[in-house]
Amino acid sequence: MEELKRAVLEKGIVVSNDILKVDMFLNHRIDTKLALAMGNYIADYFRNKRPNIILTIEASGIAIAITTAIALGNIPVVFAKKAAASNQGTDRLHANVHSFTKNKDYAVSVERDYLPNGSRVLIVDDFLANGEAMRGLIKITEYANCTLCGAAVAIEKAFQSGGRELRNQGVDLLSLCKIKSIENGKIVLED
Amino acid sequence: MEELKRAVLEKGIVVSNDILKVDMFLNHRIDTKLALAMGNYIADYFRNKRPNIILTIEASGIAIAITTAIALGNIPVVFAKKAAASNQGTDRLHANVHSFTKNKDYAVSVERDYLPNGSRVLIVDDFLANGEAMRGLIKITEYANCTLCGAAVAIEKAFQSGGRELRNQGVDLLSLCKIKSIENGKIVLED
Repeated sequence: MEELKRAVLEKGIVVSNDILKVDMFLNHRIDTKLALAMGNYIADYFRNKRPNIILTIEASGIAIAITTAIALGNIPVVFAKKAAASNQGTDRLHANVHSFTKNKDYAVSVERDYLPNGSRVLIVDDFLANGEAMRGLIKITEYANCTLCGAAVAIEKAFQSGGRELRNQGVDLLSLCKIKSIENGKIVLED
Repeated sequence: MEELKRAVLEKGIVVSNDILKVDMFLNHRIDTKLALAMGNYIADYFRNKRPNIILTIEASGIAIAITTAIALGNIPVVFAKKAAASNQGTDRLHANVHSFTKNKDYAVSVERDYLPNGSRVLIVDDFLANGEAMRGLIKITEYANCTLCGAAVAIEKAFQSGGRELRNQGVDLLSLCKIKSIENGKIVLED
């Protein structure tokens, strides 16, 4: 997706050979116009699969999830939570996720009622690297007896294995910007 | 705001005399149509103050922040983070916040560059009770030398002191739904 690729190349900051900082437009400060364009793009790609719920994970996925939901006719968004607050119900679907960025394991969970049996789920997230968070969301979709329409991510680090593994499993995975490599401070995108 | 009041009364679940569960439409599952309506309502109220950045806090504030930003002409959204990830920069503005829901203190922070000096900031969040998170966001706005246009929250627990204190300090605070009391399982709204 051209607008996102341009933003990554023009504004992204290489922190190390596997960490790219894009929080000036994607996951701390959000470029609202770009988020809307990403939502439209994702919606156009998946519309024929008739998703009726967007599933994402707090916090950075929420913005694109909302704009995708708007573009699909204001369908609901459910965001998986990373920790249980004291006022949450107990009938929850859980999956464990390892964060390489934060170097720790955490549980993600969704209240069962919010993913009704038979829902058609489209997963949306900001980043895909090792695919840990995505696998957690797919497990939760399965536990809920929902149909997975597919998954969309803004940025895929294609030099890590998550995207390849998910596609090999048959997941219809859309990446709006695929990063081929980050070497010596330079970002190289796939065509 | 009538749509939100109706949702609170029809779908909200009283957990205890000070905890109301609205995560079926506001802060776990998001009713996208309602989020858009809330964003339009907030934007209409604050438009004449010409905000050019929305400031919120992860994770539940992001959805309404985005829809407000869209209604104000696609201005950017910045969300304060509750913990620093390893790939974040170091020039950050911090404030301490006590969460009564989770019964712990935490730091919220925003990277300084994303709130440029002189920006006109509108704060948006889902809940206001004791006002702790809101005060943290106001402090960060001040540290950044920005102008506070005002603050909007979806639900104010008016039986707690946050809203009254903020208004006494001169904050232009818009609450879309004010809860007067929660007693014996019954939600009573202010007019």
